[in-house]
Amino acid sequence: MAKYKSGRVTLPTDRDMDEKILEIRELWGADAVRNSDGTSLGEDIMHSFQKVYATYLTTRADLIWGKLHPEELSQIYLMTPHTTARTETLEIRLLDGYYEEEVQINKIEDPVRFWEVMDRTTGDVVAPERWRWDFVKGTVTIKAEKWHVYTVTFLAFQIWDAVCMYNHLTNNWGSRPHDLPYDVYNPRTREHVLQYLKDWLHDNPRPDVVRFTTFFYQFSLIYDDLKREKIVDWFGYSGSVNPRLLEDFEKEYGYRLRPEDIVRQGSHNSSFCVPAKQFLDYMDFVQRFVTKLARQCVDLVHAAGREAMMFFGDHWIGAEPYGKYWGEIGLDAIAGSVGDGVTCRMIADVPDVKYREGRFLPYFFPDTFYPGGDPTAEANANWLAARRSICRKPLDRIGYGGYLGLASRFPDFINRVAEICDEFREIYDKIGGTKPYAPKFKVAILNCWGKTRRWQTTMVAHAKTYKQNYPYIGIVEALCGMPFDVDFISFDEVRANGVPCDVRVILNYGMAGTSWSGGENWLDQKIVSALREFTHSGGGFIGIGEPCALLHQGRFFQLADILGVDRELGFTLIYTKYTEQFRGEHFIIDDPGRDFDFGGGSDDVYAINDNTRNLVVENGCVRIAANSFGAGRSVYISGLPYNARNVRLLLRSIYWAGGIEGELKKSWFSENIYTECNAYPDSGWYCVLNNSCEAQTTKVYKGDGTSVNVNLEPMEIKWFVI
Amino acid sequence: MAKYKSGRVTLPTDRDMDEKILEIRELWGADAVRNSDGTSLGEDIMHSFQKVYATYLTTRADLIWGKLHPEELSQIYLMTPHTTARTETLEIRLLDGYYEEEVQINKIEDPVRFWEVMDRTTGDVVAPERWRWDFVKGTVTIKAEKWHVYTVTFLAFQIWDAVCMYNHLTNNWGSRPHDLPYDVYNPRTREHVLQYLKDWLHDNPRPDVVRFTTFFYQFSLIYDDLKREKIVDWFGYSGSVNPRLLEDFEKEYGYRLRPEDIVRQGSHNSSFCVPAKQFLDYMDFVQRFVTKLARQCVDLVHAAGREAMMFFGDHWIGAEPYGKYWGEIGLDAIAGSVGDGVTCRMIADVPDVKYREGRFLPYFFPDTFYPGGDPTAEANANWLAARRSICRKPLDRIGYGGYLGLASRFPDFINRVAEICDEFREIYDKIGGTKPYAPKFKVAILNCWGKTRRWQTTMVAHAKTYKQNYPYIGIVEALCGMPFDVDFISFDEVRANGVPCDVRVILNYGMAGTSWSGGENWLDQKIVSALREFTHSGGGFIGIGEPCALLHQGRFFQLADILGVDRELGFTLIYTKYTEQFRGEHFIIDDPGRDFDFGGGSDDVYAINDNTRNLVVENGCVRIAANSFGAGRSVYISGLPYNARNVRLLLRSIYWAGGIEGELKKSWFSENIYTECNAYPDSGWYCVLNNSCEAQTTKVYKGDGTSVNVNLEPMEIKWFVI
Repeated sequence: MAKYKSGRVTLPTDRDMDEKILEIRELWGADAVRNSDGTSLGEDIMHSFQKVYATYLTTRADLIWGKLHPEELSQIYLMTPHTTARTETLEIRLLDGYYEEEVQINKIEDPVRFWEVMDRTTGDVVAPERWRWDFVKGTVTIKAEKWHVYTVTFLAFQIWDAVCMYNHLTNNWGSRPHDLPYDVYNPRTREHVLQYLKDWLHDNPRPDVVRFTTFFYQFSLIYDDLKREKIVDWFGYSGSVNPRLLEDFEKEYGYRLRPEDIVRQGSHNSSFCVPAKQFLDYMDFVQRFVTKLARQCVDLVHAAGREAMMFFGDHWIGAEPYGKYWGEIGLDAIAGSVGDGVTCRMIADVPDVKYREGRFLPYFFPDTFYPGGDPTAEANANWLAARRSICRKPLDRIGYGGYLGLASRFPDFINRVAEICDEFREIYDKIGGTKPYAPKFKVAILNCWGKTRRWQTTMVAHAKTYKQNYPYIGIVEALCGMPFDVDFISFDEVRANGVPCDVRVILNYGMAGTSWSGGENWLDQKIVSALREFTHSGGGFIGIGEPCALLHQGRFFQLADILGVDRELGFTLIYTKYTEQFRGEHFIIDDPGRDFDFGGGSDDVYAINDNTRNLVVENGCVRIAANSFGAGRSVYISGLPYNARNVRLLLRSIYWAGGIEGELKKSWFSENIYTECNAYPDSGWYCVLNNSCEAQTTKVYKGDGTSVNVNLEPMEIKWFVI
Repeated sequence: MAKYKSGRVTLPTDRDMDEKILEIRELWGADAVRNSDGTSLGEDIMHSFQKVYATYLTTRADLIWGKLHPEELSQIYLMTPHTTARTETLEIRLLDGYYEEEVQINKIEDPVRFWEVMDRTTGDVVAPERWRWDFVKGTVTIKAEKWHVYTVTFLAFQIWDAVCMYNHLTNNWGSRPHDLPYDVYNPRTREHVLQYLKDWLHDNPRPDVVRFTTFFYQFSLIYDDLKREKIVDWFGYSGSVNPRLLEDFEKEYGYRLRPEDIVRQGSHNSSFCVPAKQFLDYMDFVQRFVTKLARQCVDLVHAAGREAMMFFGDHWIGAEPYGKYWGEIGLDAIAGSVGDGVTCRMIADVPDVKYREGRFLPYFFPDTFYPGGDPTAEANANWLAARRSICRKPLDRIGYGGYLGLASRFPDFINRVAEICDEFREIYDKIGGTKPYAPKFKVAILNCWGKTRRWQTTMVAHAKTYKQNYPYIGIVEALCGMPFDVDFISFDEVRANGVPCDVRVILNYGMAGTSWSGGENWLDQKIVSALREFTHSGGGFIGIGEPCALLHQGRFFQLADILGVDRELGFTLIYTKYTEQFRGEHFIIDDPGRDFDFGGGSDDVYAINDNTRNLVVENGCVRIAANSFGAGRSVYISGLPYNARNVRLLLRSIYWAGGIEGELKKSWFSENIYTECNAYPDSGWYCVLNNSCEAQTTKVYKGDGTSVNVNLEPMEIKWFVI
């Protein structure tokens, strides 16, 4: 496949391996190179690449600045653990449970103005007269109601950049200095950051691409007193606070943010919380500030004749690629880590940049690249997941990270990545920028966040699965590689304008009360009416887990009438449930094998009437149900972790709910569940993917009802002319 | 064991088996006999028993009365299913989904006054101007908001007594007439019922015991349009309503009950709902009415020189054996069905009667007594469950029900019951009315109902297990046979007076938001403070499933500080959980074998600090945890279905939480988990029970630290002198 042997690949580097780098560059067809931590390239090597990337650390590169201006370090709102008053005097040591090398109490600002003591038993703010702050001991002493539970929310300085800390502790960097993150909301620091960038651009003429890693505010990554991860929230805004910012906010919005608006009972407004107006205002304010300053940075880069790229991670808070102000930053490119299919798609879909680059796994670090390790297996799993997504919406470039020297000791791996690079380029070329085949309607995911959290639903940490989101994170992982145009819509949009008219199927899912499921939005008659009207007139509604769930007026699933099922919470156990397994055939589960994995998912779901088709019932509880509502249809699934069978289940559910089940075999469809087919009518190609590590045989329907049998080697992708 | 061969046993009868009856009477040592449906005894036979029971059906015996006075039949509030308005005119047929041979719309009373149309989308009452009632079609037509969901609550007559209907349909009674239940709230019917009883007592001189089956209002047993059980609520008051009663209620209480106060969003105030003041007032009102009239019936029975017994079931609504007014009825005895240990204890603990009788299983019906059936196995299981309970608090009498002729065809069964009768009498005699050994404190179960629902927590239908209450119903089943003095306390009691001072260990359990767990009571600072004070000063708190659970101020388990665990609902997934399995030995799980069955139980529970001992962790979730709080201790268990291992787990949890774990082997304690020991210091006996159907060997600790090894045959009980 020599024709694809060049370009679209970025190579990491390493020390003392100039010759080897050139060899791998040739093998992988790499056209760009980037420094990894602690590596630097020789001039010759640099000249053998079309582009050189340089990682740029905006708010922590200058070790001296932070030390000279400790009062201008980044800050964060922290909350002490819930503490019970066992006597009428309760002393809380603020940093208990925190890692004091990471954070330190801000002792400069007035606690009465910027802190908040909460009685968590009553939910009331404790009046400042009832507590006092001991500067020396780092404690707050409360005149408490005995047996009430209290928390203190306080401002802290971040005295160790969290990413630096993470790398430092993970890799045992010992005495290597700690990067101090400084806060650009302080005018003096802001000026310094801009000047530092100007100087750097001047002093470093070679890099073609300035890879901002990242801008100004780190997502929440807080350690505990045992140096362990305590909080990780990829979307966390708590580390972007600053007393001056809060004051400016008040001037603009006419109201003052309370510390509680930021920490929200300790949840720190996790994206699982139904967002409050105050927090949305805060996000907007931060985004506007970040956008404006990031634009200044990008302008400097452009003025120096370079390209500006943002890493989608780390200090990305406020620079939201799916936020309202993204385009105004003016970046040339985005790069991000590809942990799976959906994080790949999350990068690929970023608007308003010229190109998007995915950094694939495994990272070239000793945890994978040790004697006897199997990095190739990890690369294969990562590629198979990402490839599905790329076939729907290609990245423009791929790359790897870490120390190339480590990887070069694994020739199998080097060769396999060479194949992957070629496969990627072939996909990119064959698609040729055209739109892949999809039914002529949109599938929309409905939640509180809508487009803002495009492809990021139920995510906590980047590409990490938790028991509790395992039944949900698989939904977007499935969808990112499926032949549908997927949109993300918010309750606010539906409230304002109803369901967009190009949407045929709506998905709603998540744990009850969360932003994903929707919480109190389901008490809004505008929302339930819009969904009922949508479905009744022919739309499809797919609920997974605890969709539209909030106990109200005798129903838990507020759209139980559409879904045909509800969940028993105990209050109506007096009703005998006749949740009988549907014995007939049904399009949704028409593939061989019905041993679905619902990943736990929601339990105690029952059919509310005899019309509901309970397609899978386990232990008396509905796992999959199909129902109709007027001209529309609904599907309920109790949970949908990612696997081949569930991808197919979702595909069939969407076809059925959308009322086009008759078209499945007239679409581009590969019968074997371990395979998928994508067609590109405008480029004249279609491909068949083997997503498994075993050989597969499948029958592929070619869009016109005709079919062809295809044999695929393990992991193979085969291309055919339409 | 000839010495125990007589008395305390009631025999059912049958037709044409006088000789056989006498033989079985002899074998079982029966001293009383009672008619079963459709049987009647010869005079000779009757005279060979000390006592003859006659079942008396208070409000349905007179078939003619109901027919002559259809407007005086018992009534019920029914609610239509939630129905979505798909146009602006919504017609709801009221009886859709109901069995029209059981209930009929009350067309006499003014719908505007006694019905209620609810907009379940908004929770608002629909103004009467916006709906009209079609007398002929039996429909209500609502001028609706399109896409809103509506229900209609209406008064219906019960035109078929539910128990009669159940027996009729279950046994295919064909054309046998339907008993009509009439409502004694109507003065004319009330007079008739009293007169009918007087006449009956006059016409039936032989029965010594009038067994009321039962008084005036049937618990909720409602069938659907397919003649299937639709609602069964053993505690349901919905069938006790009557327009005159509602008017009298208004006069007394000064406010009018709404239909919604009775049906409560369709839950019919299931005992799982946190009771509302209106419903408690209503219960009280009904109880006072029932008590007064039942007293009149009992007085008539006494005046005729007979004993009055109440069956604890069927039409027992308002005659609550654990209610405030129970003693005023003046009954001599109570009888009830023994479905398991806890229903046995529920009967045995009834106060203010001279004796208590349990009707054991199996019922002599063809569903068990068919050729090839194994009624002996059922009798054994029933007896083993009941025996545990009897050893703690004996019934005064036992008996069986159904058709004796059927049972007489199974000689093994007849012989086994003879042994059971003897075993029962021996237990009764050896205990001799003395108090069994227990540690010197009370174990209290805390919920919204307290003593009112003594031994009836999380019960829906009598002795029936549902998937959702399976993790909880086992708790009282375990406790009813355990060596503890058990009390039931309500939040209201704790609110008023704190935790009673004789209570050392408190249990709280159930599904979140239910009356059992406590719902909003946990937002009351008086409650949480009382529990904290209690535990902190040395008490034990045991939470099972979702105890003290209601999301508030960042905590789901409101006593998470005591329990050391909380449940993750998604909002705090950003916190990394370090729920590590405790590796050491621990008293609570110190028996061999840790393969506990938690019955599903509560999931996603995690340790909130590093001090919590996570004794069992499954899939990252805490199943059993132990914690300390001041001088007190807590235990969390995710669910506790009934089995030998869980009984022991609960025993050890109570000893440990109560801080007397050192006393276990100085108490009367049998080591083998399939066995239990009960001692009666005042009567000088102790017994060892084998609760299993296999032979067991155990070491029995004799209260003073000494021990003895005991071998037990399958199901054996062995008695020893202390």
